[in-house]
Amino acid sequence: MKVSIINIGDELLIGQVVNSNAATMSRMLVAAGMDVSEVAVIGDDGREIEETLQRLERRCDAVLMTGGLGPTKDDITKKVLCEHYGSRLVENVEALDNVRRIFESRGYELTPVNRQQAWVPECCEMLNNDLGTAPCMWFGPRREGDAVLVSMPGVPFEMEWLMRNRVIPKLQSTFNTGAIVNKNILVQGIGESFLSDLIEPWELSLPENMRLAYLPSAGLTKLRITARGEDADKLREGIERRLAGLYSIAEKYIVGEDCETLEELVHKRLLEKRVTLATAESCTGGTIASRLTAQPGASAYMKGGVVAYSNEVKESTLGVRHETLATHGAVSEETVREMVEGVRRRLGADYAIATTGIAGPDGGTKEKPVGTVWIAVSSERETVAQLLQFGGNRRQQNIDRSVNQAFAMLLRMLKQ
Amino acid sequence: MKVSIINIGDELLIGQVVNSNAATMSRMLVAAGMDVSEVAVIGDDGREIEETLQRLERRCDAVLMTGGLGPTKDDITKKVLCEHYGSRLVENVEALDNVRRIFESRGYELTPVNRQQAWVPECCEMLNNDLGTAPCMWFGPRREGDAVLVSMPGVPFEMEWLMRNRVIPKLQSTFNTGAIVNKNILVQGIGESFLSDLIEPWELSLPENMRLAYLPSAGLTKLRITARGEDADKLREGIERRLAGLYSIAEKYIVGEDCETLEELVHKRLLEKRVTLATAESCTGGTIASRLTAQPGASAYMKGGVVAYSNEVKESTLGVRHETLATHGAVSEETVREMVEGVRRRLGADYAIATTGIAGPDGGTKEKPVGTVWIAVSSERETVAQLLQFGGNRRQQNIDRSVNQAFAMLLRMLKQ
Repeated sequence: MKVSIINIGDELLIGQVVNSNAATMSRMLVAAGMDVSEVAVIGDDGREIEETLQRLERRCDAVLMTGGLGPTKDDITKKVLCEHYGSRLVENVEALDNVRRIFESRGYELTPVNRQQAWVPECCEMLNNDLGTAPCMWFGPRREGDAVLVSMPGVPFEMEWLMRNRVIPKLQSTFNTGAIVNKNILVQGIGESFLSDLIEPWELSLPENMRLAYLPSAGLTKLRITARGEDADKLREGIERRLAGLYSIAEKYIVGEDCETLEELVHKRLLEKRVTLATAESCTGGTIASRLTAQPGASAYMKGGVVAYSNEVKESTLGVRHETLATHGAVSEETVREMVEGVRRRLGADYAIATTGIAGPDGGTKEKPVGTVWIAVSSERETVAQLLQFGGNRRQQNIDRSVNQAFAMLLRMLKQ
Repeated sequence: MKVSIINIGDELLIGQVVNSNAATMSRMLVAAGMDVSEVAVIGDDGREIEETLQRLERRCDAVLMTGGLGPTKDDITKKVLCEHYGSRLVENVEALDNVRRIFESRGYELTPVNRQQAWVPECCEMLNNDLGTAPCMWFGPRREGDAVLVSMPGVPFEMEWLMRNRVIPKLQSTFNTGAIVNKNILVQGIGESFLSDLIEPWELSLPENMRLAYLPSAGLTKLRITARGEDADKLREGIERRLAGLYSIAEKYIVGEDCETLEELVHKRLLEKRVTLATAESCTGGTIASRLTAQPGASAYMKGGVVAYSNEVKESTLGVRHETLATHGAVSEETVREMVEGVRRRLGADYAIATTGIAGPDGGTKEKPVGTVWIAVSSERETVAQLLQFGGNRRQQNIDRSVNQAFAMLLRMLKQ
């Protein structure tokens, strides 16, 4: 099944906004077993929208469109759709109820401009948008063999909710796509090509209906197994049986399953184990704490953290000894160990993470070039420290890799 | 002048990678006075690439293409371009020198596979890629009236460097686009529609050759003035003259000029004033520290920070009094003031920032609903605290707005 995406909005063409909708939609479609053949990003321009629609509706099974549905003059999607389908705008009762409900819940009065949100092409089917006032509209094929078209708002959280709860289920039932089951396995501590060599025999032994994808980023590889068939439960069982083989070859690199990021996994594990965490960050500058606390509910385990950028703060707030810093330097095993144990004790946490290194692009020396990073994790039972040597001098990349490495080390310690 | 963008790569269509290249390229092109009419994202598929090329080269002045230039089998852009232009692959001497230089600088040996990077269509002009081994290729119009085509690597930092140093200058000279000057003004503390009403008379008085754009995000609005003409210096002078009028109406909302983000501005100001900073973050969980330290050179002013998530850490690490927390709660003016003064004194910094609030989606009460945030900034001379009430319960949005508000408050204090 082939799907095309059209993202409409002048703000996307001037680069004001990164078009994350395309990636979110693609990821969700691919996970549901559909192929995305093209993404077209165009402005709020009637002729462009019509031309793109005409081109894509002949080439695929479904066209998903976002944007251009606000109540302002710039937003012309509904007008274009009326012309395209030879239909006219009518006030839709359910849509009006929805707009009214949302305005009431926000305590605002419904103005005539907002009421326009409930006007939609007569020929479309409404899919209710529980989170916003813009409509989600489903259009059957215009001619024999043409694509189904869905138009939805470009606001990311509304779009994502609509895709999950309305659009994908309806696409699956309309096109009878069968069952699809995905399984993510997070692998860390081995490069993509070495991993590929290591697990090749296992990969080749997978049955026809299972596909493996490698999704690498910042020192981490997400393996995604996708299985297609009739019965989701059977597919799930099939995957679990195959996983045993993967674990027998690569267990030491596998840090977790069923999640998108390492912070998600750390979050889940710490909540399950009902233990607490503290962080002491030098080169990662607060990114570890920031990624963890971006997740709702982090306060249950997160005691807090110290961004120990200067040596004085390493001494005064974490209790790193002056002598240690003077003898071994801030980027050293001795320092990272005192940091991690200091923060764990001082903040009274069960576990702790610490980082210290040279993120770059400058500040390296012969002995400690840019990309030299020490990471430590600590519990009451033990402290483990590891030296990393990243090749590049790109600051953000070195920070992201350090963060992922720190999360992976903590996950390994939590497993024991 | 109209430009289209083609981003090639299967990884973009499965949603593995967010297509930030399109936004970066669009922003740079618009800043250089060119209009982006369409972005097409397609897979590593020869027929798709050819069809998209044929469609777009008739519709605009330049087509910029990224991706599909690696040495692996998937990457087929060069082959397609040879067919498209009726040309053949030849080994390019300059390209080979460049590949060799880069391999030498990394200490790797040049393998036959890598040497293939220097093979390019005979008919193109090479624009040297100083940062990588993939070529940047410039093709003149295929037929009268067709677009110029540029193919470059999809690696973001290589693409960005090539756009800035090779592609945009050559487009400007080829199409004789004249001079373009942009000026960014960052405005904070006023909603977009109120700002628009406030400065409307000034906006209407701008001359024909100046255009104003509103770029809002997370409680901040970037105003961009774009002036077109013959002489860049005169345009710059013209903008500066007009700015006086803007300042006379809206000075209290203007936090800075000539930058993209508030952290960039804070970074610059702290370096200029040679003063130091400390942070105490509760609801923003390390994001303030993380954004500042993502910038090279932050160690010159950043003493460090405390992520004070739990009340115990607020007491033990920042010296917030137990009584204050018990009487007024963690989200209160009294607490945020003790946090900011505590971190400034304890970390020995000239300035400090503190945040405490309820980011959501849960954890609100009647008196303190989700979105209630206290922010404070402090110097030796004074401490200023402010209460914010964000309407929504979306965690990341509440965090981002709090961070921007904190930076704006610090910038106002640094101005005095």
